[in-house]
Amino acid sequence: MEKDRYEMRFGGSGGQGVITAAVIMAEAAGVYDGYHVCQTQSYGPQSRGGNSKAELVISRREIDYPKVIKMDCLLAMNQAALDDYFYDFEPNGLLVVDATFVEQTPTSRTISLPFTAMARELGKELVANIIAVGAVARLCGKVSLESVEKAVIARVPAKFRELNEQALIAGIKAAEEVDLDRLPRSIPLEDVYGDPTG
Amino acid sequence: MEKDRYEMRFGGSGGQGVITAAVIMAEAAGVYDGYHVCQTQSYGPQSRGGNSKAELVISRREIDYPKVIKMDCLLAMNQAALDDYFYDFEPNGLLVVDATFVEQTPTSRTISLPFTAMARELGKELVANIIAVGAVARLCGKVSLESVEKAVIARVPAKFRELNEQALIAGIKAAEEVDLDRLPRSIPLEDVYGDPTG
Repeated sequence: MEKDRYEMRFGGSGGQGVITAAVIMAEAAGVYDGYHVCQTQSYGPQSRGGNSKAELVISRREIDYPKVIKMDCLLAMNQAALDDYFYDFEPNGLLVVDATFVEQTPTSRTISLPFTAMARELGKELVANIIAVGAVARLCGKVSLESVEKAVIARVPAKFRELNEQALIAGIKAAEEVDLDRLPRSIPLEDVYGDPTG
Repeated sequence: MEKDRYEMRFGGSGGQGVITAAVIMAEAAGVYDGYHVCQTQSYGPQSRGGNSKAELVISRREIDYPKVIKMDCLLAMNQAALDDYFYDFEPNGLLVVDATFVEQTPTSRTISLPFTAMARELGKELVANIIAVGAVARLCGKVSLESVEKAVIARVPAKFRELNEQALIAGIKAAEEVDLDRLPRSIPLEDVYGDPTG
């Protein structure tokens, strides 16, 4: 059975385009795949100079609470964003980081792909966020890749359409090399020691 | 005393850029003016082909509930968005509509400015949303215009910086022609008939 809420958080520095990435993912799921989606940005007085975070909740039902409670997927575009936004991570969730800027991860259950380095190879560092969208979409399996492509095309300037499509495909391909079944899993303590009430 | 929450909703069709407008306003308030801000987009299965809406809640305190409860400001970029998103309007709130596409308004307390026609005059219809941001920022008085300018510059492509700055200024100037004190006010019934408990 499909889980009721799928919760994602994207974090990165101001120029890394995490809000655009979240809006694209939200439009793929909400406009083209017919989910209920709430997409939020929160800022506080300490926002200046720091990282931004964007959150999405995706559900087949109406969404009562629009913010992340137990995060199924975290995309961190740099080390500070990972350190700051890892809280609320569901232990067997999907942690995706930009290997270009992240050296240390809080769990071995991490998918590390060099989004920014890949974007530089395409000639434009700015599309690292679109590469990341492609990878996360493929890895989480929550939205159709066709819908993600439509959402990217609708959101980016027409002039950069081809570059962004290349970026999306590069991200999807990189994710296809990842074997999710080989990632370590967090085992609940009751499964290790037996259920004390059993 | 400053009201605890200032709640805004921006509505328009897919291409009218209301999400970008809301993100810019949120970054002006949150990143540069030091408010707490929650900015949300919600989509449902009926989203396709329809209008988008974006909401912001701005507060000096932490925000418990991130969505609009009693809307202090509505920006409607077309007639359907106005019809769909007028609910929850605070009777003495600020209703701003794009006169290019809105013919009929639900209250005479409306500020009607031709954002899209003004954008066409600047040579690019796409900047109607930035003109609207300038007007709304000036009219609501909640965020500093300097912060709005910084947020616009940070968010739009460098190539279109000058055009967007022109658009912002055009919106601010158009708003300066509006005399808010001359707008009709909604008078609570107890002020008309007297307080029955008094």
